[in-house]
Amino acid sequence: MSHTARAAAGEFLGSAGLAAIVVGSGIAAQRLSPTDIGLQLFENAFATALGLTVLILVFASVSGAHFNPVVTLVDIALHRREWATAAVYVPVQVLGCIAGAVLANVLFAAPTVQWSTTERSGWPLLLSEVVATAGLILVIFALVRTGRSHLAGPAVGAYIGAAYFFTSSTSFANPAITVGRMFTDTFAGIAPASALPFVFAQVVGAALGWAAVRFFFPMAVPEPAVVPG
Amino acid sequence: MSHTARAAAGEFLGSAGLAAIVVGSGIAAQRLSPTDIGLQLFENAFATALGLTVLILVFASVSGAHFNPVVTLVDIALHRREWATAAVYVPVQVLGCIAGAVLANVLFAAPTVQWSTTERSGWPLLLSEVVATAGLILVIFALVRTGRSHLAGPAVGAYIGAAYFFTSSTSFANPAITVGRMFTDTFAGIAPASALPFVFAQVVGAALGWAAVRFFFPMAVPEPAVVPG
Amino acid sequence: MSHTARAAAGEFLGSAGLAAIVVGSGIAAQRLSPTDIGLQLFENAFATALGLTVLILVFASVSGAHFNPVVTLVDIALHRREWATAAVYVPVQVLGCIAGAVLANVLFAAPTVQWSTTERSGWPLLLSEVVATAGLILVIFALVRTGRSHLAGPAVGAYIGAAYFFTSSTSFANPAITVGRMFTDTFAGIAPASALPFVFAQVVGAALGWAAVRFFFPMAVPEPAVVPG
Amino acid sequence: MSHTARAAAGEFLGSAGLAAIVVGSGIAAQRLSPTDIGLQLFENAFATALGLTVLILVFASVSGAHFNPVVTLVDIALHRREWATAAVYVPVQVLGCIAGAVLANVLFAAPTVQWSTTERSGWPLLLSEVVATAGLILVIFALVRTGRSHLAGPAVGAYIGAAYFFTSSTSFANPAITVGRMFTDTFAGIAPASALPFVFAQVVGAALGWAAVRFFFPMAVPEPAVVPG
Repeated sequence: MSHTARAAAGEFLGSAGLAAIVVGSGIAAQRLSPTDIGLQLFENAFATALGLTVLILVFASVSGAHFNPVVTLVDIALHRREWATAAVYVPVQVLGCIAGAVLANVLFAAPTVQWSTTERSGWPLLLSEVVATAGLILVIFALVRTGRSHLAGPAVGAYIGAAYFFTSSTSFANPAITVGRMFTDTFAGIAPASALPFVFAQVVGAALGWAAVRFFFPMAVPEPAVVPG
Repeated sequence: MSHTARAAAGEFLGSAGLAAIVVGSGIAAQRLSPTDIGLQLFENAFATALGLTVLILVFASVSGAHFNPVVTLVDIALHRREWATAAVYVPVQVLGCIAGAVLANVLFAAPTVQWSTTERSGWPLLLSEVVATAGLILVIFALVRTGRSHLAGPAVGAYIGAAYFFTSSTSFANPAITVGRMFTDTFAGIAPASALPFVFAQVVGAALGWAAVRFFFPMAVPEPAVVPG
Repeated sequence: MSHTARAAAGEFLGSAGLAAIVVGSGIAAQRLSPTDIGLQLFENAFATALGLTVLILVFASVSGAHFNPVVTLVDIALHRREWATAAVYVPVQVLGCIAGAVLANVLFAAPTVQWSTTERSGWPLLLSEVVATAGLILVIFALVRTGRSHLAGPAVGAYIGAAYFFTSSTSFANPAITVGRMFTDTFAGIAPASALPFVFAQVVGAALGWAAVRFFFPMAVPEPAVVPG
Repeated sequence: MSHTARAAAGEFLGSAGLAAIVVGSGIAAQRLSPTDIGLQLFENAFATALGLTVLILVFASVSGAHFNPVVTLVDIALHRREWATAAVYVPVQVLGCIAGAVLANVLFAAPTVQWSTTERSGWPLLLSEVVATAGLILVIFALVRTGRSHLAGPAVGAYIGAAYFFTSSTSFANPAITVGRMFTDTFAGIAPASALPFVFAQVVGAALGWAAVRFFFPMAVPEPAVVPG
């Protein structure tokens, strides 16, 4: 088994895990806390923050634990990976997120595949996706460029947990998860017609985040020889 | 006192602590937040995530802090322990979880021993247990095989906190705790008739998790000489 | 300024901070979430877990960050401090907790000093205090005896956050805070008549915890030369 | 690009991020959990604790990640920076917090700029700000003076998360964020007439915190050569 194939499998399984966590905990929250949407989002954010942290810890050494096409693209733009990586990673990230959303549907006995009918549109939501994605890229690569990649798991988990609340879009910040969330008509879903603008906003945000990384962290500091804590 | 006897005592006390945390916080949540089941599960998940993290930190150097028969079995399958370990660990894990559930009943003045009447059945719940247990095994041994065992406490706590919400079974993921939860007719209980299928699903999940560990982490990296943070 | 005087001041201020966090967040929760006692306790536990973690990080190098007479006594019983320490620490811990409870009353415009009328009695609550205190001692000194004192802050914070829910007494586990909580007739208060049995149960629990520490960690491992993370 | 200009940009962007997190998550909480103010504050505290932790991790090496004029002033008073730093940092911190509050308004389609009408006055709130700010200064510089600056992110995040609940003012503890919050008539806002007393109380608290730092940590311990965890 080549390292590349293993990495691709890692991106697939990690992306599936991420989508299953996001969609599954959304369904649970919606069903168990039916009277307060804020509490639903709180439960969803709690589960996502913890679960995403763990997924990154698990897959970091396998594939880099991107689970997100714009993270892969910025990694390439910063000369840390080859363009060929994107041709492998992006499709498996998207397929993984679809598989994870479908899995969540099955785990909760919701319709296995059902297009979401949750419209998410309007400039405030799209601007939220720009901001959320720019922030995500800045968080990840600030740590990478200062030799603290080992903190990416808890930092990204914490960031997304906060961003669920400080944006009006609940911070998808990931084209692959955006596509995956089309396949569930539950709390975390997004109607297909709303998905393309979301992805566009995420790409814009990623470009802004990449510019911020280059501005604030012009030189990369190597990781320490012994990776700490 | 031999190291083996101390380890067995550690597994017993740690398993009892885990069951007391799971069952006790479930009773508290059920009584104090009677109108929202989601909030009950949120309080239960919060207490379990924090408490399990601490239990693993405490008993890691004593017994490995398994508290879970399938963790012990995978540890053996990965050639990290002898088969004889299972003969000691598994019974004390089960007895510990029973003792912990009974202790929780006593702490909250619930009937000391009472069979749970909470039926938990159906394919979605069993598939949830397969997924939850596979994920748990992957999280633990991904860290073990990459020389980061010292992160197992917070990682496993975070994983279980998330899994309470992203599965429809609320993620037991542990045959010993499944048996222990039979002994309380409260929030966290499970009717005896539902327990055996749960255990079967957990064993299947553990086997899948073991396969994933071998696929993604074919070689074990040693722990660093100075264990960090 | 001698090290001893500074340590005593640290124990006073840290104990005051702990009581202010416990009592203050209890008042806030009670006022802001009037309809769900579980949510009140959740907010109280969230604030206490985070605040206690930080207090221990701050005062660890000043005084050891005990804030708790039974922690000081076990520290002495394990030959880590002299008996004279208790004569200094215990009074300032008690006075600090009283001061902190009064401060919380003032911050929330509650009566400055008012005896609590919250009766907390019965065997389940007292047994809860035994268990909670034994667990607290085991957590702290498991880390101390294995060279991981630097993890005491987050571990103790997490433990108490969990113990608020898995015991029926909401886990005081500290004679000084028990006395301090007598001085506020709010969410976190305890009627004076209930306090003495609580303290007795805590001393019993501490003795059990001390025995468990000696059983599971018979030898102390030194801290690493460079304290990690 | 000089290091100073980059640091100033970092303080601006970090302060904007902090205000956007505080104000944005407040708006989300207010809208999504309309019936329980405690739950609103809980969601606000959760998002702020996580988001602030991440912001400090990102900008620590760029600017020191102050985002707060009184932190900058104490840093100068402790001879860690020149007075000229304040002339650059304080204005950009204030402007950043205003920009972040306005951004949050835009993200949630609230009026772009609107003076807050939330009166926050009375001695209990002002005393709360004194206590909250003194505590914040003590937390930050306790870590700095003991060679643990790398823990400032999670420690400050945890501290503020707790302080939202243990003070009656919900712990602004920062003159720049106080000014920024004037520009939004939502959950986190503060009427302009209330802001000046808040800032005064924060300066008093910072002075007390500075005295406590000098008392408890009279000598600075250098950071370890290899920054851990």
